[in-house]
Parts: sequence; structure tokens; C-alpha cells
Amino acid sequence: MDGSTLRRASWHRGRDARNARLEAGAKVAKGKIVEMRDATHLLEAVMRPDDLVCLEGDNQKQADVLSAALLAADPAKVRDLHMVQSGVVLPEHLDLFERGIARKLDFAYSGPQSARIAAMLFGGKIELGAVHTYLELFARYFIDLTPNVALIAAESADRDGNLYTGPNTEDTPTVVEATAFKDGIVIAQVGQIVDKLPRVDIPGDQVNFVVETGRHFFVEPLFTRDPAAITEGQILTAMLALKGIYAPYGVQRLNHGIGFNTAAIELLLPTYGERLGLRGKVASRFALNPHPTLIPAIESGWVEQVHCFGSEVGMDAYVRARPDVFFTGADGSLRSNRAFSQTAGLYACDMFIGSTLQIDLQGNSSTVTTSRVAGFGGAPNMGSDPRGRRHPSAPWLQAGREADPDSAPLLRRGRKLVVQIGETFGEKNAPLFVEKLDALALAEKLKLDLAPVMIYGDDVTHIVTEEGIANLLLCRDVAEREQAIRGVAGYTEVGRARDAAMVRRLRERGAIRRPEDLGIDPLDADRGLLAAHSIKDLVRWSGGLYAPPAQFRNW
Amino acid sequence: MDGSTLRRASWHRGRDARNARLEAGAKVAKGKIVEMRDATHLLEAVMRPDDLVCLEGDNQKQADVLSAALLAADPAKVRDLHMVQSGVVLPEHLDLFERGIARKLDFAYSGPQSARIAAMLFGGKIELGAVHTYLELFARYFIDLTPNVALIAAESADRDGNLYTGPNTEDTPTVVEATAFKDGIVIAQVGQIVDKLPRVDIPGDQVNFVVETGRHFFVEPLFTRDPAAITEGQILTAMLALKGIYAPYGVQRLNHGIGFNTAAIELLLPTYGERLGLRGKVASRFALNPHPTLIPAIESGWVEQVHCFGSEVGMDAYVRARPDVFFTGADGSLRSNRAFSQTAGLYACDMFIGSTLQIDLQGNSSTVTTSRVAGFGGAPNMGSDPRGRRHPSAPWLQAGREADPDSAPLLRRGRKLVVQIGETFGEKNAPLFVEKLDALALAEKLKLDLAPVMIYGDDVTHIVTEEGIANLLLCRDVAEREQAIRGVAGYTEVGRARDAAMVRRLRERGAIRRPEDLGIDPLDADRGLLAAHSIKDLVRWSGGLYAPPAQFRNW
Repeated sequence: MDGSTLRRASWHRGRDARNARLEAGAKVAKGKIVEMRDATHLLEAVMRPDDLVCLEGDNQKQADVLSAALLAADPAKVRDLHMVQSGVVLPEHLDLFERGIARKLDFAYSGPQSARIAAMLFGGKIELGAVHTYLELFARYFIDLTPNVALIAAESADRDGNLYTGPNTEDTPTVVEATAFKDGIVIAQVGQIVDKLPRVDIPGDQVNFVVETGRHFFVEPLFTRDPAAITEGQILTAMLALKGIYAPYGVQRLNHGIGFNTAAIELLLPTYGERLGLRGKVASRFALNPHPTLIPAIESGWVEQVHCFGSEVGMDAYVRARPDVFFTGADGSLRSNRAFSQTAGLYACDMFIGSTLQIDLQGNSSTVTTSRVAGFGGAPNMGSDPRGRRHPSAPWLQAGREADPDSAPLLRRGRKLVVQIGETFGEKNAPLFVEKLDALALAEKLKLDLAPVMIYGDDVTHIVTEEGIANLLLCRDVAEREQAIRGVAGYTEVGRARDAAMVRRLRERGAIRRPEDLGIDPLDADRGLLAAHSIKDLVRWSGGLYAPPAQFRNW
Repeated sequence: MDGSTLRRASWHRGRDARNARLEAGAKVAKGKIVEMRDATHLLEAVMRPDDLVCLEGDNQKQADVLSAALLAADPAKVRDLHMVQSGVVLPEHLDLFERGIARKLDFAYSGPQSARIAAMLFGGKIELGAVHTYLELFARYFIDLTPNVALIAAESADRDGNLYTGPNTEDTPTVVEATAFKDGIVIAQVGQIVDKLPRVDIPGDQVNFVVETGRHFFVEPLFTRDPAAITEGQILTAMLALKGIYAPYGVQRLNHGIGFNTAAIELLLPTYGERLGLRGKVASRFALNPHPTLIPAIESGWVEQVHCFGSEVGMDAYVRARPDVFFTGADGSLRSNRAFSQTAGLYACDMFIGSTLQIDLQGNSSTVTTSRVAGFGGAPNMGSDPRGRRHPSAPWLQAGREADPDSAPLLRRGRKLVVQIGETFGEKNAPLFVEKLDALALAEKLKLDLAPVMIYGDDVTHIVTEEGIANLLLCRDVAEREQAIRGVAGYTEVGRARDAAMVRRLRERGAIRRPEDLGIDPLDADRGLLAAHSIKDLVRWSGGLYAPPAQFRNW
């Protein structure tokens, strides 16, 4: 062969290698269908050492049967995999590293495994690539973390391999696109194989093998907050946010975090929000999962549209009944899509508001403790100022004006509203405000390049506590920013060390606003204000369509 | 009906309205298939005044037959549409406004129509929503600019409405997802209807009607740069960029703009880059269309992977032969996807480098003149610092360190490299550097909220001209930044008004680097360095697979 023939032969190496894997896999398959008992054999046949593997692994939906099948593989055949998956959620995801089947990890969120993942990193049992946000990891799927094999989950398939994901579409289209179109192999676990799918979420020519499991994939109710657990402190912060931020900026397009403070806001819209005359003026369009606590606001006509990252257990029938609000398919059920909803949260929302565990004197915040690597999920993406944004909106321009009143208006970008909300003392009386984030100690211990900061202080625009609202847009230097933070930090050590004179001046300028400055009497922050007081109330609001998961039923 | 029944009836209004439209459309269809002569009737049947309509309208691919059909509609029936499309490219796109069929416009890019769009905005013939980047407009499709009707283009369809887009997938999956899952109507023009598609890019249950046109949709070769037109000035800037930026930062993951300066860089990789020993160390992974000028670098083993926004005319056979580099489908042809490639450009690339028309003293840049509204396309998205990014990389950390050497390393984010490259005098001897951007005059004239700045100075890290490289990361205040810019502005008025002493000090610090500081002799910037000197050379490099469009063939 001459040089050019040689070169040309090498062009097809990727495709040839893929075809060799497919042929090996075909030996345990009938067409695309593989029996569950053969799943491990299939994985051994199609995987190679050092492969990049996405074991789906979303925020909610888990390819649990395939993760068990992979764990059962022979480490002599399947080893040193580089896992590139957004969620590290199941124990099996980490067992893979204990067995030597996996070696390296790039991920975005580790919820229930955050303590074990930290221990394994510290013990050298996992080689860490990086911790990402979801959208960032998806981005890398197309550039330098493209999976060789994707193990995904769907509700059902037909014999051609077309997949129906049901409401938890989540990351699947993104993972499949990156894998299937770059000569990778896509293997799906499905509850059942049917003749005709309710709708096609993934075309069959992007799917190589299908394993029928006979049961639903594992999915956790992460976005259900029981109204009964909402405190009056949280209600007060919600009132402050509504009257002090939502109203004056006129925020229509937004994302809420998953904490109790924002659940309280959702439940105050039809009551306190209505009294303030805000219906139609704020909080009408969301990038948000189908939060059960949003049902009363939807039923009261507040919400025009919600695009969802994923779904939520128990919300299927309710969502089906509200195609006017939610994105649904021809079959009637929710179509979620994490990549698009994160993009919407980044570029089409004027506000992100969420709770956090710790805030330092610069306004940096973190949800990690010294022994947990929880990952970033989506908050840093949505809770950052999108400097590539070019379309104006009233809230965005107003925030930009406040931050930089003196520069030329035509050259002055707007700012995204990034709001941190919480009580000055959180669970177990831990102070929200600290001199130094635990994230720093964690980074030192694990020798990370960067401390895992969830939201950086230079992106935060407001901090809301029961003591008031700090508007960091109005702070002109580091010292003012620090005192504005101290000024809403209550009786925490950080709060007690405030410079009273400076805090007073900041308050005069509106950089700090107390409840009384907003005409809010803290004594009015009563649970009676909540549109629903219990999960049962939410079921009632939904006309009986919301079916809460067992652990939230106490009747 | 009681209140709750009334309320529940309203839930289905969206779906009922959609069904009424579908029934009206079905009268001119056989199944999903509509004859081309009935296309206008179809649109009159399914559209309502004030509808949000996406008339695809990508950077390259155009639903040209459907735009002609819409233009032929009766304005008494179809009027006041709100067009939400990324590209305003065909004359028909604007004729719609002249005829009153369309009233309001939200868009991202207007290439060849930029002068007419400006005139029509000034004449009050178009009500402007906003000008966006692509990804930003896609984001709004899911929040507040969701299309009621999408008119899209594909290569072929089967009778179930499954679509094959071919290499120009571009925006189609995004537009269809936003429309189909929010009770909108999707109408596709296709070249032909076939029994079996090469691959399924859009599942048929997301497509309501298909119009067979018997010909290919219109697509323009936007990314073809003839090596014969590259100047020695451009070659010098390319050498400076390679030795002064690519090499010291070790940039592996990047996006190139579409100008001649970056085409020169692509053509220098196998020659000058090779001599510098940079193969395997820089420029291996791209978010990029299949630029013909990248062929020599691919064939010389520089490029590991390219993910594409769209395709490029004439590159189909070459891309098919290189599935090791490009994303391709089971049918062998390119799979492009603008939403994912823009996300990759935002979050997974360490550098954006592109040319511009004007740069001001703060480093703000713009490609508009006082009489053109060209739109933003993708540059502001990729040319901005993604503050939501959390994964470290060596170039990103190094840039962050240079920008902010004194802050705590664990709390110091990295920075994206955003490079502007050009000669100090551009076409028609227009100076690249100006005291005031023409964009400001345009914004004043059209009463825009913001001047159309392509890349803001606070995001730019380097400016490269034939006089040298200004590293703005190393500038510590506004005055230094201004002098660093003046210091590479050559004999433009901006350049001649430099403070020579300050420029000297900046150079001593490396904030300005001259060719000689980098060991580059401007006399070496010779066309002989280019790996290809003509389009014909590119064809040769491709082994005859690249088939340049007619206007680029001069042999």
C-alpha cells in the first residue's frame, strides 16, 4: 500500500472497530433484542478497556438494570472504563470503580453518593476527570468526552429499536446523539417491547441493542417538597423575595431551585402574590421540573408555560391534563429535555433563585461540606450571568443599570438576576454565612484545581434572608459588598461582625432593605398564607390528578 | 358548567385549537402529504393572525419553497405573523413584511438581507422583537417565543412523515422539538418522498404535513474561503496567533470564525505549525463547520474531532470518508446540529478566535455598519466568557491566572480565550480600530435598547494584528487596556494616538508582543507557507473528494 492508501485505511478504523463490536454483540442478540440474562455478555462483547462509557445516570432516571449488568462483567474483559455520565446516583455506579471495571470519572451530580464519592476520591479509588454542570458535560460529549458506548433507559421500544422515553426524556437524546453519530454503540434498557410506541423519542437507527427488563427504570422524586414542612422563616423570605425582587423587576421568565424557600414562593403566588396584584406581571414562564408545589399557581392562572428538565414522580396525569402549560407529545405525556431546558435557563430566563448551604463574605456560595462531593447539577449554569446574551428585557436592563449606572447606556449590558435565598441559620442551626467555605477545605484535601463553588459572588445580585434583602448590584466595591452581606446575616458570627454605620448607609441607599422598608410585618409570615398546607392539599388543587409517591402520603 | 369544569375546559383550548387547524389542513392533504400546488392553501388553512411562525431560516439551509408559498398567501387570511427564525436570508423573508403577512421579527442572523432589514426597521415596516445569538433564540423557543407553526426543510421524507435532513440538520431538531411538543404544527418541505429513508433525523410523529418539492432546498456556501485570496498580512497574523497564543496556552479545543485570518491559520497548521512542533499539542478538537481550508490539517493528522453547526456545500463526500473526524449517521453522511455545536463552543472550547470589522478603545467589537443590521449569529455566544463553566483545563486556568494573579487560586475561575484577529486596515482601507463603533450610530438611528456589539471588550483576551498581540488579560486598568489596543493598532488614527512610553512598558511586561518578541520575521510571512494555494489544491488534498461549488471553480 502506498502512503495515501495507508492513510485512507486509517480513516475507517473507528467505523471498523465499531462494526467488530457490533458483530460480537450480534451473537447474543436476535436482531436488536437481547434477553436480560444476556445483558452482561452483551456488554463484555461490545466494550473495550479504556472505553468512554455513559451509563445513564440522569438527575432522575437511572439505567439501573444495565448498571447491574455492567457490574457483573468480568474485569478481565471489561476494565478501566472512563465513565462520563451526568448523575452518579446508584451504589452500583461506584461499585464499578471498586471492581476495577471503571477507572476514571467525569460527572455533574452525585446526590446520594456524595459522601462515598469523596471517600473514594480521597482513597485514590477514582481518578477524577472533572465535576461539571449538566450543560457543560453535554458540551464535552461533542468535543472531547464522546462516549464509545452509551447505556440508556427508556420506557418501551419497538423491534426496530425506536424508543419511547415517557415523561423522563431528560438527557437521553443528548447522550444518544453524541454516541450514535460518532461511531459509538447505544444500548437501551426498556420496560417492555411493544408493536407500536406511543411516540418516538429516539429513532431506531440510533439504537443498536435493546434489553427488555419487564419493569420500570428507577426514578427518584427529587422535586417534591411537602408544604407541611415549610417554616414561617421560609415564608418570610418568600414574601421578601416576591415584594422586593419579583415585583420591582417584573420578573416573568425564571428558574426556581429545589429548596423549601422557593417552594414557599410557589405556594404564595395565589395568595400573597395575588394580594400584591402581581398575577400576569411576574413568574409566568419557567424552566423548571413539574414541581407539585407549583400546582396551585398553575390552577390559579399564574403560569403560562413551563419547560422541564425532567419529570417528577406522581405528576404524569396532571401534566397530561395541562398541555396548555407543559410541553407534551402526541401521546399526551410530558416531553422533558435537560439540554434545552438548561439552555433556556441560561439564556431565556431573567432570574435564577435558589437556596444554598454556605455563603462567604464575597458572596460565593457552596452546597458541599468537607466530606461530600455533591457535584454542580444545573445551578451554576443558570446562576451565572450569561455574557453571550444579546436580547434585552426590562428586568435584565434594570439590573444592568443598577450595577453600572454611569456607563454609556447603549454599551451597557444587562445583568441576570441571581438570587440566593435562605434563613441565616439552616438545618441543625448551621450558619448560612461563613468566613471561609467548607468547599476550600475539600479542595485542599482532594487536591482539586478549584474549590467547588456553586455560584460565584460576582454573579450573585441579591441575597435574601429573614433579616432582609442585600442588593449586591448597588454595592460599589468589595467592602460595601461584604457589609451588605453581613447586614442580612442576622445573628451569625458574620452578621454580628458588621460595621453598623456602613450597614446603615447601605440601607439608606436601598442596598439593604429590611422587611419594614418593604412594608412587610414579619408577624404576617404565617403558614395560613400558603395556598396548600399539605401534600393532600396539592392533590386537591390538582383535581385528584397528582398522585404523590408513597413516602409523601400520610393519610 | 361549574367553575372547575370551566377551568378544565380552558386547559384544552391549545390542543383543541391545534386540532381544528389540523382538520382544516387535512382537507388539502392525503394523509400527511400535500401537493406543492396546494402548499399555500395548506398554510392559509393552518395559520391564524398573530401566530408565532418559524420559517426555517438557518445559517445555511432555507425552506425556500415554503417561504414562497407563504408569500403567496392571502393577507386577509394570513396576517400579522410574528416570525421567530434564526436566519433572515431570502428576499421572501422580508417581502412577507411588505405584504402585511408578517408584522414582528425575532431573529439571529440576516447576512445578505442586512441592508434591507435596516431600511425596513427604520421605515417602520418591521416591528423588531430582538436580535439574538442562535443559542439564545433557541432558548427562547422553549420559554416565550414558542412557534405555533414551523415551516422546515429536509432532504426526504417517508409517508409517515419521518424526515431525513442529510448533512444540513442544523436547527431543525430544535425548531421541531419546541413546536411539536407545545401543540404547534410542523410542516416540512422535502426534495422527495421515499419508501425507506437513509436515516431518521426527525421522527414522523413530530411532523404534521409534508410537501414534496422535487428539488433540493436552497443552501449557500458560507464557509468556503479561497486560499488564493489570502494575503501575506493575514498570514503574518496567523503566524503570530499560532506562536503567540495557540502554543503558549496549549489550546486543544476551539472554534474558528469564518474570516480569512482563521482560514490562514488552518492552512498553516501542516506547515508552520508542524515546524513549531505543535501537532498533537494544539488545535485538535473543533466546534466548526466543515471548512474546506481545514482539509490539509485533517489529512496531516492534526485534527481528532470536529462537531459541526451545519455543513458546507461540496464537503459531503469528504466528510463521509472521514467518520473518524466528523459526526456522521448510519447512512454515512454528516450529522450537524447547531444547538449542540453552539453549546460545545460555549462550554467545551477553551478558545474562540475570529475576525471583526471594528474594535473600539475598550475592545468592544462589531461587524455592523450604520446601514446594516447583520445580526449576531453565533460569535457572541462562543466569544464570551462562560461564567457557568466549572471544569478546569490548562489553557483556561492559565488565562484566569494572568487576569487575576493575586486572588486565591482555589477561588479563581479560569477565563476563556477570546481572540480578535485582523489587519489594522481592512477592506477598502477601512481602519479596524475606531474611537466609536458604527454600531452606536445604528442603535441611535433605530432607537435600539443596546448597540449591536458582537463581542464586548471585557470578554476579549487578545487582539492580534500584523503589528503584534495585545494581551488584555495582563492589563490592570482601563488606561492600560486602551494603550494595549492602541499599541497594536498600527497606523490607524487610534494607533497613532498611542502613549509611546506606556506602550513600551506594556511591551516590557508582555502585554504587547511584537513579531520580533516572538522570533517571527514579518518577511517570512509568505504565501509559500500555506498548505494549499488554491481551491484546486484543497481538492487535491481531499483525494478528489471535495467538490467545490461552481463559483469557486476557475479551472
